[in-house]
Amino acid sequence: MEETLNIDKKYVENSLKQKINVLKDNRFLMDEVFIPISKALKIDVDEVIEIFLKKLDFTSCYELHAYAEQARMGCLGRKVDIDLGLCWLCDFFGLIKKEEADLIRKKVVELHVLHKKPYEEALEEGRKLIIKLLREE
Amino acid sequence: MEETLNIDKKYVENSLKQKINVLKDNRFLMDEVFIPISKALKIDVDEVIEIFLKKLDFTSCYELHAYAEQARMGCLGRKVDIDLGLCWLCDFFGLIKKEEADLIRKKVVELHVLHKKPYEEALEEGRKLIIKLLREE
Repeated sequence: MEETLNIDKKYVENSLKQKINVLKDNRFLMDEVFIPISKALKIDVDEVIEIFLKKLDFTSCYELHAYAEQARMGCLGRKVDIDLGLCWLCDFFGLIKKEEADLIRKKVVELHVLHKKPYEEALEEGRKLIIKLLREE
Repeated sequence: MEETLNIDKKYVENSLKQKINVLKDNRFLMDEVFIPISKALKIDVDEVIEIFLKKLDFTSCYELHAYAEQARMGCLGRKVDIDLGLCWLCDFFGLIKKEEADLIRKKVVELHVLHKKPYEEALEEGRKLIIKLLREE
């Protein structure tokens, strides 16, 4: 009985170690998920990883990378909306059409994520497009 | 005929002046709409006002204040999502429930807009709530 309990305990410990390794060894997850979240919440990055480990099962940890790719594009798009004032110009004042805003947001995200342009430079491209539209050039 | 044209021209000029005054005299619109947009787009605030004037009719200019109140709350909420990492934690990784994220976002926006707490301090309140939830305290 005791032996079975020990085997169970060892299994849990090994499983936890595996989960920690899966998450810690992934540079993309560190750079794109854990570090940004630790900065946003102003808590230690190790605590962020612990929270993910506590909340996610093993399969979800393996799938995290795929989710993170989606999240990176999605959350960056929302940041672009704020940084370029698209939230105001498109959604609330209707000075830019929704389709135009979608294209501009996509362009900035792609320039940064796919073409590795620094965020500020990608943003500047989006800014130019918006100003052109507003000036009706 | 010429006189009629002159009257028309004068009418247009007066109408434009009225629109400019409506927009320029409104401190709320200046602080909450035109100045933030001019900063986001890195163009002169006078050009932002001109763009609004060009795109909006007289009635819309009068209604702008009401739209701006909505926009202020809406766009601020989206900024809170980014600044607190709620976009990641809730929408993509599901570590925070949607209802919880909605309450936290609302709390931060209200603290800042209604209770005039500086944005960083309001954000700090939201941050504490998120950490409490993640730590399951």
